Amino acid sequence: MTRQELNQEINRKRSCLCIGLDAAPVSFEMNKKIIDETANYAVAFKPNVAFYEADGWKGWKILEKTMDYLRSTYPGHFLIADAKRGDIGNTAKEYARTFFERMDFDAITLSPYMGYDSIEPFLEYTQKWVIILALTSNPSATDFQLFSGAENKPLYRHVIDTANTWADNNKIMYVAGATRPHLLQEVRKAAPDRFLLVPGVGAQGGAIEEVMQYGKTQDGDLLINVSRSVIYSDKGFAQAAGLLADSMSRFFS
Amino acid sequence: MTRQELNQEINRKRSCLCIGLDAAPVSFEMNKKIIDETANYAVAFKPNVAFYEADGWKGWKILEKTMDYLRSTYPGHFLIADAKRGDIGNTAKEYARTFFERMDFDAITLSPYMGYDSIEPFLEYTQKWVIILALTSNPSATDFQLFSGAENKPLYRHVIDTANTWADNNKIMYVAGATRPHLLQEVRKAAPDRFLLVPGVGAQGGAIEEVMQYGKTQDGDLLINVSRSVIYSDKGFAQAAGLLADSMSRFFS
Repeated sequence: MTRQELNQEINRKRSCLCIGLDAAPVSFEMNKKIIDETANYAVAFKPNVAFYEADGWKGWKILEKTMDYLRSTYPGHFLIADAKRGDIGNTAKEYARTFFERMDFDAITLSPYMGYDSIEPFLEYTQKWVIILALTSNPSATDFQLFSGAENKPLYRHVIDTANTWADNNKIMYVAGATRPHLLQEVRKAAPDRFLLVPGVGAQGGAIEEVMQYGKTQDGDLLINVSRSVIYSDKGFAQAAGLLADSMSRFFS
Repeated sequence: MTRQELNQEINRKRSCLCIGLDAAPVSFEMNKKIIDETANYAVAFKPNVAFYEADGWKGWKILEKTMDYLRSTYPGHFLIADAKRGDIGNTAKEYARTFFERMDFDAITLSPYMGYDSIEPFLEYTQKWVIILALTSNPSATDFQLFSGAENKPLYRHVIDTANTWADNNKIMYVAGATRPHLLQEVRKAAPDRFLLVPGVGAQGGAIEEVMQYGKTQDGDLLINVSRSVIYSDKGFAQAAGLLADSMSRFFS
């Protein structure tokens, strides 16, 4: 899926909603129910691989089955493997094969710590995306991501400036947490025409309105991930997702 | 396994050898053969999880079976999950459960990018270890790990100084690549009494002698990982591992 195609979906649905498929313990039936009830409001789905690995090979089977179901039933949705991988070249190739060929995800989240050659094997796939951790939503993100270099440039900014040179805005997007809105603005400045994947809304404390205001561009270029406040909502999945999409829709002209 | 116990094994065998179980495509029979032929020379085994994931749920079954075999047949060896994970707290908990409870690894490699709360759930397990990526062996390690802060302190050094405060030398060790010997010396200075796990010998170009000279302490505190130059050796696994252990043994008094 190209940036233009994904933005078309976002503008058509007036929603940047990405649903995290992270209900523990994982179950295909639960995933199917979440997907079926939220697909109208969401433009993307994002299983966090950790929750599947926690059930060993059975968890992997559930992940593969979930992907098959999504691919065959909802072909227009953008599918993200939240894997946060990062390893040397020959290992990165194996991960790329797993997530892009074996499971046909559109995108994978990657940690930048090991640099370009840990990312490059993923960039070789056409129509696939790499989502690089820039500024994450967790409290300890400040430990290293705000480590300050020359002219007070923090590490996360150096990551963005560097990775911007690796591939264009049809290939690389960034993770930018919702929990530090002023820094989300800084990320947007550093990547003015790139997609941002924003976690941290809801259970982690970020506010949708701020994320829409600081994160969305005129074209769109924004995915807001929500996991726990949908899958553990009292309201049911459909209503919870519908309300979230509603609060996003007023930011579309 | 405590630092003292692992160092006792290292000094008894006069070997710091860790064998990477990364033969692609993965197979239990191949792993068993590698393990059986090298166990006398090695103190540790380290499957890289990527190679197992590449085969989906079948790969995970092979990883679990390999772990069962190692645990039951070679209980004295130190077992490392080379996973390079790093995610927010509730996700990190799932990963810890997977690798420490479900599969009973002694240690897991983790990326520091997301900071303390991505590491902390692993530190809660007694007798288990966290191996934090500090300075990796790949060419692009320089992209971000050498990003320089105040007083020319590079990021990898900031990672070590910070993580040294998180837990003692029975809990945290560091990855330091063999491919930049002068920087391996710097890592050793920053972590004088911690275990270092050193990849990058052999196929990646690092030399055993330099690693032993710069990496080993009087107690030991060193694991040198070798994968491709054993599992793809013309000599056979046992002879290749034996020669490597031999070249290490002269650094023991």
